[in-house]
Amino acid sequence: MDFPLLPQVATAETADVYFLRSREVLRRLDLDPFVGMQVFCRLGGVFCGGGQVRQLFEETSFGGELWMLAEGETVQPGEAAVEILALYGSFGRFETALLGILASCTAWATAARAAVEAAGETPVVSFGARHVHPNVAAIMDYAAVVGGCLTCSTPLGAALARKKPAGTMPHAYVLIVGDTVRAAEAFDAVMPHDIPRIILVDTFQDETVESLRVAGALGPRLEGVRLDTPSERGGVTPALVTELRARLDEAGFGSVLITVSGGMTPERITAFRDYGAPVDSFGVGSYISGACPIDFTADIREIEGAAIAKRGRLPGMTRNPRLRRVL
Amino acid sequence: MDFPLLPQVATAETADVYFLRSREVLRRLDLDPFVGMQVFCRLGGVFCGGGQVRQLFEETSFGGELWMLAEGETVQPGEAAVEILALYGSFGRFETALLGILASCTAWATAARAAVEAAGETPVVSFGARHVHPNVAAIMDYAAVVGGCLTCSTPLGAALARKKPAGTMPHAYVLIVGDTVRAAEAFDAVMPHDIPRIILVDTFQDETVESLRVAGALGPRLEGVRLDTPSERGGVTPALVTELRARLDEAGFGSVLITVSGGMTPERITAFRDYGAPVDSFGVGSYISGACPIDFTADIREIEGAAIAKRGRLPGMTRNPRLRRVL
Amino acid sequence: MDFPLLPQVATAETADVYFLRSREVLRRLDLDPFVGMQVFCRLGGVFCGGGQVRQLFEETSFGGELWMLAEGETVQPGEAAVEILALYGSFGRFETALLGILASCTAWATAARAAVEAAGETPVVSFGARHVHPNVAAIMDYAAVVGGCLTCSTPLGAALARKKPAGTMPHAYVLIVGDTVRAAEAFDAVMPHDIPRIILVDTFQDETVESLRVAGALGPRLEGVRLDTPSERGGVTPALVTELRARLDEAGFGSVLITVSGGMTPERITAFRDYGAPVDSFGVGSYISGACPIDFTADIREIEGAAIAKRGRLPGMTRNPRLRRVL
Amino acid sequence: MDFPLLPQVATAETADVYFLRSREVLRRLDLDPFVGMQVFCRLGGVFCGGGQVRQLFEETSFGGELWMLAEGETVQPGEAAVEILALYGSFGRFETALLGILASCTAWATAARAAVEAAGETPVVSFGARHVHPNVAAIMDYAAVVGGCLTCSTPLGAALARKKPAGTMPHAYVLIVGDTVRAAEAFDAVMPHDIPRIILVDTFQDETVESLRVAGALGPRLEGVRLDTPSERGGVTPALVTELRARLDEAGFGSVLITVSGGMTPERITAFRDYGAPVDSFGVGSYISGACPIDFTADIREIEGAAIAKRGRLPGMTRNPRLRRVL
Amino acid sequence: MDFPLLPQVATAETADVYFLRSREVLRRLDLDPFVGMQVFCRLGGVFCGGGQVRQLFEETSFGGELWMLAEGETVQPGEAAVEILALYGSFGRFETALLGILASCTAWATAARAAVEAAGETPVVSFGARHVHPNVAAIMDYAAVVGGCLTCSTPLGAALARKKPAGTMPHAYVLIVGDTVRAAEAFDAVMPHDIPRIILVDTFQDETVESLRVAGALGPRLEGVRLDTPSERGGVTPALVTELRARLDEAGFGSVLITVSGGMTPERITAFRDYGAPVDSFGVGSYISGACPIDFTADIREIEGAAIAKRGRLPGMTRNPRLRRVL
Amino acid sequence: MDFPLLPQVATAETADVYFLRSREVLRRLDLDPFVGMQVFCRLGGVFCGGGQVRQLFEETSFGGELWMLAEGETVQPGEAAVEILALYGSFGRFETALLGILASCTAWATAARAAVEAAGETPVVSFGARHVHPNVAAIMDYAAVVGGCLTCSTPLGAALARKKPAGTMPHAYVLIVGDTVRAAEAFDAVMPHDIPRIILVDTFQDETVESLRVAGALGPRLEGVRLDTPSERGGVTPALVTELRARLDEAGFGSVLITVSGGMTPERITAFRDYGAPVDSFGVGSYISGACPIDFTADIREIEGAAIAKRGRLPGMTRNPRLRRVL
Repeated sequence: MDFPLLPQVATAETADVYFLRSREVLRRLDLDPFVGMQVFCRLGGVFCGGGQVRQLFEETSFGGELWMLAEGETVQPGEAAVEILALYGSFGRFETALLGILASCTAWATAARAAVEAAGETPVVSFGARHVHPNVAAIMDYAAVVGGCLTCSTPLGAALARKKPAGTMPHAYVLIVGDTVRAAEAFDAVMPHDIPRIILVDTFQDETVESLRVAGALGPRLEGVRLDTPSERGGVTPALVTELRARLDEAGFGSVLITVSGGMTPERITAFRDYGAPVDSFGVGSYISGACPIDFTADIREIEGAAIAKRGRLPGMTRNPRLRRVL
Repeated sequence: MDFPLLPQVATAETADVYFLRSREVLRRLDLDPFVGMQVFCRLGGVFCGGGQVRQLFEETSFGGELWMLAEGETVQPGEAAVEILALYGSFGRFETALLGILASCTAWATAARAAVEAAGETPVVSFGARHVHPNVAAIMDYAAVVGGCLTCSTPLGAALARKKPAGTMPHAYVLIVGDTVRAAEAFDAVMPHDIPRIILVDTFQDETVESLRVAGALGPRLEGVRLDTPSERGGVTPALVTELRARLDEAGFGSVLITVSGGMTPERITAFRDYGAPVDSFGVGSYISGACPIDFTADIREIEGAAIAKRGRLPGMTRNPRLRRVL
Repeated sequence: MDFPLLPQVATAETADVYFLRSREVLRRLDLDPFVGMQVFCRLGGVFCGGGQVRQLFEETSFGGELWMLAEGETVQPGEAAVEILALYGSFGRFETALLGILASCTAWATAARAAVEAAGETPVVSFGARHVHPNVAAIMDYAAVVGGCLTCSTPLGAALARKKPAGTMPHAYVLIVGDTVRAAEAFDAVMPHDIPRIILVDTFQDETVESLRVAGALGPRLEGVRLDTPSERGGVTPALVTELRARLDEAGFGSVLITVSGGMTPERITAFRDYGAPVDSFGVGSYISGACPIDFTADIREIEGAAIAKRGRLPGMTRNPRLRRVL
Repeated sequence: MDFPLLPQVATAETADVYFLRSREVLRRLDLDPFVGMQVFCRLGGVFCGGGQVRQLFEETSFGGELWMLAEGETVQPGEAAVEILALYGSFGRFETALLGILASCTAWATAARAAVEAAGETPVVSFGARHVHPNVAAIMDYAAVVGGCLTCSTPLGAALARKKPAGTMPHAYVLIVGDTVRAAEAFDAVMPHDIPRIILVDTFQDETVESLRVAGALGPRLEGVRLDTPSERGGVTPALVTELRARLDEAGFGSVLITVSGGMTPERITAFRDYGAPVDSFGVGSYISGACPIDFTADIREIEGAAIAKRGRLPGMTRNPRLRRVL
Repeated sequence: MDFPLLPQVATAETADVYFLRSREVLRRLDLDPFVGMQVFCRLGGVFCGGGQVRQLFEETSFGGELWMLAEGETVQPGEAAVEILALYGSFGRFETALLGILASCTAWATAARAAVEAAGETPVVSFGARHVHPNVAAIMDYAAVVGGCLTCSTPLGAALARKKPAGTMPHAYVLIVGDTVRAAEAFDAVMPHDIPRIILVDTFQDETVESLRVAGALGPRLEGVRLDTPSERGGVTPALVTELRARLDEAGFGSVLITVSGGMTPERITAFRDYGAPVDSFGVGSYISGACPIDFTADIREIEGAAIAKRGRLPGMTRNPRLRRVL
Repeated sequence: MDFPLLPQVATAETADVYFLRSREVLRRLDLDPFVGMQVFCRLGGVFCGGGQVRQLFEETSFGGELWMLAEGETVQPGEAAVEILALYGSFGRFETALLGILASCTAWATAARAAVEAAGETPVVSFGARHVHPNVAAIMDYAAVVGGCLTCSTPLGAALARKKPAGTMPHAYVLIVGDTVRAAEAFDAVMPHDIPRIILVDTFQDETVESLRVAGALGPRLEGVRLDTPSERGGVTPALVTELRARLDEAGFGSVLITVSGGMTPERITAFRDYGAPVDSFGVGSYISGACPIDFTADIREIEGAAIAKRGRLPGMTRNPRLRRVL
């Protein structure tokens, strides 16, 4: 499936304008050397975005070689993650897009990896679409899966990642129906069988009270409950999960799973695990989707075979045997 | 000019899937109440993104009232920034997109405002396209101008903001030409007269040496020089700007402007000003484009005229006289 | 009303044993000079305990003059709070008790003062009996009222302070009755009319749900509700109080008061006030009753009219015009 | 020997008043279920106070089972330290006293343990009676011995702990006698042979000068000297102890022991040991007696055999095999 | 009086060797331009050392103009403190000495100023000779007086500063005499009348005991006592000074002054003043003599009238109207 | 070779005046006991200055035994580093000089050792003469070599340390010649063959540009280049060294060494090594020459064979088998 890129990316309207101006000058000078460019990041992380870069280059006038790490590989600080060997004129104007794709996607995948590692065996689902612009929400979800999330919440993101989207129900839905049990029953009545019945239990009442009511109503069809307690009520705490588990078990609902969400970070996930709270899955939102971009830099290192570099950089191509040629 | 939104936004493929599922259940239940929803953010900032929300609602099935703050107004923590009065079914599935647009755009505008305020009278230009995904680069640039930037570096962003894009030249261009003075002369020869001649002077040589050479070559046609000294060489420092100014003035190039870029933040901008460094404009990149999203929350506060709220929120619509009706 | 002191205090069995041994030696030496002793504390605070000291001296062999600050006056660091002019043999063995009474009582009163000042116009009630030994619980409550609390929770403490004891109901009671509304109704049916109906609403259910149920059941006889949400559920938060107030008001129960308790400190009380949370009274427990003792020191400064002092102290009595003679 | 409890403890006048009110309501409702209650603390420590609880229950109407840890055992955070199985009416009103006894005594014993562990082989004596109310001074001393102190300074505390009280002489005594050597000689002449001659040497003169004078005067009858140098003179320092030891040894008084006191904490004790200062015993005061209470919580977990718990707690009795039945 | 400089300073044997080598090359090149050099420091402070620079230049081949601030003036960060206009060959080899003299002397004077300002009206005496190499001890003392000290402890330093040296007596002297009073009496008997009798009172005994003994022995001839209590005994504390003053006054020795020394810094001096301790003079040692050098930098700014500067510095002489010509 | 001490050191004019006054009193008392004195420091470090002490004692009236550690040995905190057994009158007046010599020299040697240890195999050269008074610059350089520096920059210091002085050329020289390459060529033409050609490359131009020009001009006669980039240009960074190495190697100048200087400390040296920057030698200045003195204390411990000590110190000589007799 193709990545959804705005058409203005391929026309370089989203490039820094100076690439377009340089292009014009170089054309007049009739200068179009064969160059070697390497792209690296200072911080390192989980490499992501290479597929989009390849798609962009395929759709435009690129005629050289494109080498890169695989999606999801760890990129070391300072390591060349992408290498381009081509006539400069065939790709130079896409430097902005190339760097932007990698900066955003690598940041999302890296943050997802941190959450996933904190969670250990417990699955993590990407729930952060609401915290980023919808033009990138699905790509963010794709990157989160590259970073290790089990799946994500947007249909388009899930499609990119070849997963089924995950979700429960919004508070708005429960409020409109007017009662958590009725909302659960309606959901259960309407949804296809392969959609898991995971009910949101914090809209009207104490979470443990509602969970027991819902479990009583849906019986074995209930797959799980989601705790998304707002911060005004102290947020979801390890003690709450533990208590809910105890009350469910005691009432004979030992198979009902508990999903938690709301401000989850690796630190909070670790706190749940250190406490021994029996969480069955974590929904992670803004920690992933609001991750600070991991900046990449592109350096020309060779022009017509001669080593060169701007001041402050090392001239000449460095060899990275981990790169694979994709174009 | 229309904002460039992916077509999948209007089809709700970038929504959290549970909105789509709820929609189906509510349809079966034949439940489509008239609701009042309010959208607020905890942190406050410079409101931005309302135009995109309006465009999205206009393009889809929305039939109610849409009220909001104006682009660039300050939104207070907890204040209702957007208010929707409509049948839930006509807009509910766009909650994800609505929140994501506001979270990203408000964050960018707010960060731009902080940089602009730090810079005082000195103009700030948004140079951060390379640090974000190209699907949002132009929208980010637009938001930066909403936040107070003079202009930005992408043609599409500048068009959205009704500005001319700004830029100098990339290091790649200077490296390919092979000499800063020749690069400057070619640029000067080719570019239309209304494009300012601002030359990048740190590619090959000491910045002061190159600036004097370029000023000698272009004479009064030279508008300015840009310092983008890499961190490997200590970055741009207030002392460097001061020294360059002194050397230019002494050589009779008092009208040549000095633009600085590279890791500029309000703190660093303030340091330049406290030192008294004679900077003529600041290029700000990742501080704006990598700003952490400012999360918004949408609450249903009224259903068919009755006050309601989920647990943890106050029931009933609060009145905000600053809102203006846009649909 | 007499302060409840153990009989072993007056027999000096709770004194440091060396006072008893010294007494014996001095008797054999036939040494019983007239001394001047001054008692001060390094930290300062709200002076409390003087009444107990007077009672102890009255009940024993004391025959000199006893001067002191009034209960509840502020004592400055280093200021003489108590002054004794008497034959040493008539009181020397009570130095331990004297210092201990002042250290504990002044600490409790000082902590109470800090909580009361943080609370501004809102009353504070001492709820800390469960955090200190029952031998001093009532005296602690008395000291808390000296420090500014409106009243306290123990009958004996309230009697010492000439107040009516305050309280609601324990979780144990609600659990035994099995339902919050039934517990409220029984309480209302049995208690005399002058006992305010303040119901504990966090035992079984969400606090707002229970409050509305209780308010519906008791009607105008309900004076207030108490929030004591456990930390496992995030504790009582300013947002919870605000929401409860809004829901009560909306339902027409605007006259129901809200009392909060559980880990209240001046910092948390200030946070409630800064947030604007409509709290009607604060129950403060361990912050007062667990206050670290404010140590007092007793120095002999004069023997038979001659100025003297141990190494490290200033010889001679200092004059403190604020002292009043009580014996 | 019985613990000295105020008579008002057994009449529940020191209870939170709501226990008395609930009692009345439950009587009217004719509700007196058989309950299981467990008592735990969040912080853990050295369990102390169980004997007093047992004494209180024995003296009142208790008719059920009482299980608890042994005095001095380590209680883990969250572990059930006391378990009660009885008709609620027979003990419910003593919850305040029960928790207060455990909070105070466990805190004192825990602090004592920390000081004792810091001191290693060197004995620690509880000297803190002057920093707490005399109603609890002896119980504090008892708890300090439970925590590992060799003995304590109050006769009543020592009796409770089945020890001999320890002490030297107060500064007041030395001041009255007027000379340290004369004070030492009088003490030596009067005291029975089994009271060790430990002389306070910092009242009038430099500690080393006085120690040598006293040692010369008392000869082999001198057991030790106590350093209690006031903070105005820099307090007792490791260097002072070391110098005093050297000067005593050089003068042939190698058997004279050195006791130090004054603001001793585990940190300061550790500093003495790290320095290698030859201290023979530590007197620890406010660190033990001013220890912040370690709060305990009592939860009803079972009513008439059915598991139950208030919101935030786990329903049902947990099994703790370390508990022993005492009633 | 001449400053004591090693003869090797004038022969440039203490210069960085590269100045000597450059000199040789420039001679061969027959290059001896007339240059303008300015000397500044980044930190600022109390300018000191100019007299030594002048003396050095006078004694050697210097033939140009020498301008500088006056001894004791405040030099601002970055301000030209010294300006040289001369043939380079006549002074270039003394750059090392020039900078070293200013760095050391300015640091000492600046530290002295800080101590003097902390002390307010109370005089400060420089006692730090023992903490620096004797080749600079007297110059350090001179700089301390420039910085505001009343006088200093070395005869040579005092002569340079046109003061009388100050001092009391060393511990070694008191130890050899064997008794403080005898040491005081012998000092009194032997010393000329104009040497103040200030006796060191902490060698053998408690300071207050010895002070009273000495005051009794010398009567009105005693000018003061010096407290230099070692850190092993807690050092000199504000409380000790206050107590000593009280005991002296009470015994009728109100005119005996109190001098304190031992680790005095502006912070400790401020602590004495904040406490209200009646100190009559402060002896300050290592704070002044161990002050970290305040580095100076010398820049050639003009060669044969043309503005020039090394990279990183501003070309051309800046005008400083505060400079005065000394040669 | 003799250490250069001012003549006023031997005449005790740089002593604290009280030693001279005591001397006079003791003479009148005819007191000149045989004493044992020990000298120690609290902090420990690299012992240095013993040779100067010995020289001073040899040149004056000393007639006893002098024992000490060897130059460069590590002295432990509290360890006796010097021991004097002699008639007090023969050396007492030199206590100030003795302590000052050891304090300064040990500090310099200790700081040098820290820099040398940070640098590992890479040599360190003492470049700090310009930061200390020229009266001690050479002695500082000597101490730096005792602490492990390869050599130093002053001829006199190098002579004391039996090394050849090291240095390159000052910025003043390059500025006067007017071009780095011409300056290098002149230096090469004039200097004897055994003076290494190490050229300063940051005066006019970017360091890498100048290095390549100089290397081209001098060819194999070029031994190295020195980077001393001013802080206004970001100082010398590990990345700059790495880039320069790469550019030199690529141009065939692999044998040209790189020396760095300017604000080097153990922390910055460690940063260069952690980065892997190929530095060939470090020039360390103010870190060594501005080291805070390491104070020494001299205690009389024995008088005529009897153990004694002032208050706060241990009486009697301690044995240190590491001391060697030098006089």
